[in-house]
Amino acid sequence: MLPATNRRHRVVVVGAGFGGIAAARALRNTPVDVVIVDAHNFHTFQPLLYQVATAGLDTDDIASAVRGIFRRQHNVDVVLGRVAAVDIERRTLTITDHPPLAYDTLVLAAGAVSADYGIAGVREHAIGLKSMADALAVRDRVLRSFERAAAQPELVDDGLLTVAIVGGGPTGVELAGGTQELFSRVLRRDFPSLDLRRSRVVLIEAADRLLGPFAPHLGDKALRTLRSRGVEVVLGTGVDRIEGTAGEPPSVAGAVVLSDGRRIPAGTIVWATGVTAAPLAQRLIDADPAVQTTRGGRIVVGPDLTLPGHPEVFVIGDIAASRDDQGHGDLLPQVAQPAIQGGRYAARAIGARLAGTTTEPFRYRDKGSMATIGRNAAVCEFPNGWTLSGRLGWMAWLGLHLIELVGFRNRANVLVNWGWNYFTYDRGARLIAPQEK
Amino acid sequence: MLPATNRRHRVVVVGAGFGGIAAARALRNTPVDVVIVDAHNFHTFQPLLYQVATAGLDTDDIASAVRGIFRRQHNVDVVLGRVAAVDIERRTLTITDHPPLAYDTLVLAAGAVSADYGIAGVREHAIGLKSMADALAVRDRVLRSFERAAAQPELVDDGLLTVAIVGGGPTGVELAGGTQELFSRVLRRDFPSLDLRRSRVVLIEAADRLLGPFAPHLGDKALRTLRSRGVEVVLGTGVDRIEGTAGEPPSVAGAVVLSDGRRIPAGTIVWATGVTAAPLAQRLIDADPAVQTTRGGRIVVGPDLTLPGHPEVFVIGDIAASRDDQGHGDLLPQVAQPAIQGGRYAARAIGARLAGTTTEPFRYRDKGSMATIGRNAAVCEFPNGWTLSGRLGWMAWLGLHLIELVGFRNRANVLVNWGWNYFTYDRGARLIAPQEK
Repeated sequence: MLPATNRRHRVVVVGAGFGGIAAARALRNTPVDVVIVDAHNFHTFQPLLYQVATAGLDTDDIASAVRGIFRRQHNVDVVLGRVAAVDIERRTLTITDHPPLAYDTLVLAAGAVSADYGIAGVREHAIGLKSMADALAVRDRVLRSFERAAAQPELVDDGLLTVAIVGGGPTGVELAGGTQELFSRVLRRDFPSLDLRRSRVVLIEAADRLLGPFAPHLGDKALRTLRSRGVEVVLGTGVDRIEGTAGEPPSVAGAVVLSDGRRIPAGTIVWATGVTAAPLAQRLIDADPAVQTTRGGRIVVGPDLTLPGHPEVFVIGDIAASRDDQGHGDLLPQVAQPAIQGGRYAARAIGARLAGTTTEPFRYRDKGSMATIGRNAAVCEFPNGWTLSGRLGWMAWLGLHLIELVGFRNRANVLVNWGWNYFTYDRGARLIAPQEK
Repeated sequence: MLPATNRRHRVVVVGAGFGGIAAARALRNTPVDVVIVDAHNFHTFQPLLYQVATAGLDTDDIASAVRGIFRRQHNVDVVLGRVAAVDIERRTLTITDHPPLAYDTLVLAAGAVSADYGIAGVREHAIGLKSMADALAVRDRVLRSFERAAAQPELVDDGLLTVAIVGGGPTGVELAGGTQELFSRVLRRDFPSLDLRRSRVVLIEAADRLLGPFAPHLGDKALRTLRSRGVEVVLGTGVDRIEGTAGEPPSVAGAVVLSDGRRIPAGTIVWATGVTAAPLAQRLIDADPAVQTTRGGRIVVGPDLTLPGHPEVFVIGDIAASRDDQGHGDLLPQVAQPAIQGGRYAARAIGARLAGTTTEPFRYRDKGSMATIGRNAAVCEFPNGWTLSGRLGWMAWLGLHLIELVGFRNRANVLVNWGWNYFTYDRGARLIAPQEK
């Protein structure tokens, strides 16, 4: 076990997502040793996972080696592993394939995972869109369905070329738009023998409109754009269950059965609704039964983003139930900005404590939201109430995402790939994963 | 089953490697229907597999969707599947997950796979370098070894940070040079806590010199360059067996036991020597016991690259025992050029037959050979006997490989990645594959 004495104050950050990376970066001039623990050796730029799922970008375009990010920041070390247990009294983490790790301050930024809300069949027959492995699984499934339909066109009648997406939030909308483009611009040309009129992209949302967190007129705009491009949108209808199909390999992935009894057979089913806190939240409860959670398993934190009674444990990002208005307002959305701002706040608070000063409570600064619907179409909402949509919104979306990728090495590649996609209507990354050795 | 009557002459090409792609492309103006069958939906640019193995390039940089390559060539169709049997009398292929496929002319371009020469332990404990899956497995293994050593530094004494490469031909030399660079330029900075002086790259060759097919002074040059950069080269020593190690997960991959009794424990063992014809060769023998093969299982063909007695069956590239000097000279090397030229020849011969004319026997035109040893170092040999090495050789190598990638979409990305690697001494693709869903 690495001893926690006779050395600098050690901050252990669990999770190399937006929150964890922001916290570690913001500690660069603080006299602490930082250790980032993550189960992957790369950071994933989650907002662009749907691009990998729709073959527009490949993994290395939106992934960045964690050790590479901190090459020049010499107070950061990286540990590849999963946190198996938290000993909150001894201030020690148990990590798979690694000696126990002691901390002086802990920053929990482990994120969230897909939640099935107890709906039958989700885990077995649907794919989430929260990780790189998810995105590759969706891409693989869609491309294999088309190859299979080329060999056995009769399976198209069973819904093989249907992609059903559950959840009309930004993830579902972006994936639906991207998939429709992949179909109409790329696969239509790749598979001239298939009747693409029988392929379907179906987006299912339980609420009465798309993009719930956005202004209503932007949800309407997204709905009109998606429908005009050929996406079938089902609103105001929940999902009762997801069924599989027999056969080996099964002819289609299964069917989404709606609450009104309708059945949508589909070759690919994506579960793009609902997340729950990462399993680490449960380990924290195991360690300290006094830990409170909200709906979605998010850990309740104080106005300074620490665990009540444990000022040495910060909880930030998707795994935290942090609130705006200095802890009194609504739960913050589980997107990049609250995680980044929470990470920076935690770093500032750690520095202040070591310097013997105090910090104001966390205050979230809303920077607005964006969702892209497809080529030349996106919706943006700024905190002052202004909105953008259409081509202008898309250019704002593109510019912001390129800026956000700055600092990661992939921006040039992303630019090359996006330029290529835009001008040639081609997608370079449509590779079905090699499996045999 | 797709009927073979009442339609245009159908050419079925098995394999989307250099030979198969060249044949199909060269048939673009011939009044035939072409069907390419491959187990992958992408073409792999094999000469750069070592770049993926050493994290310099990612998969999509050297892979290209087969359907994308033939987007504009409307007489080509693509089938994703493996050839399970050849019925040479009925001119029909049995393909996994696909209806049987009839042909009028067959072009077999299925390539070669790693051969273990019956040496014990190769299959269990070593990784080949013939496919994208191989390259990703090598990359994964090396990066995981370093992460593991960071967690358990005592394992370095067991050889965890050693990469042992068996085979001093171009593949082994390029991989050894690339791995040494990955160690000294990138991983040294990624893992500042590890003592990289205890990492080793060991290249083992049974012959007395490296790069057997090249002029001796180029092999010597490669030897000097590799050694000066820190690669340990063992010459004139065969491999007796490869041993595994106990433990779960095992502390190292195993050990290479040399014919002189020396044991080289290693975290990663790459088998870069020896290939044998793809399994399809055996299926052809099953179909027609008269089929002859040479050492390495390569199928004997006549001067027109067809199977004796079966003028409708062309066999080209690594799977064929084609010879230069119009069928009387030495066996051609199993590299890209003979496959490309064989593919073009087969296409020309098919066109000539349909036009009622004849074709000269196949004549191989040697265009020389190249192997890169690392940054600013490569060796080139031209057919007139001229040679190049050092920085000039490297620039020739770089230029040629960029030109060869033209026509595939990846050239811009490759340029971006190589430029990035060259000027920053960084490698962008050092991602350990995501495994959990």
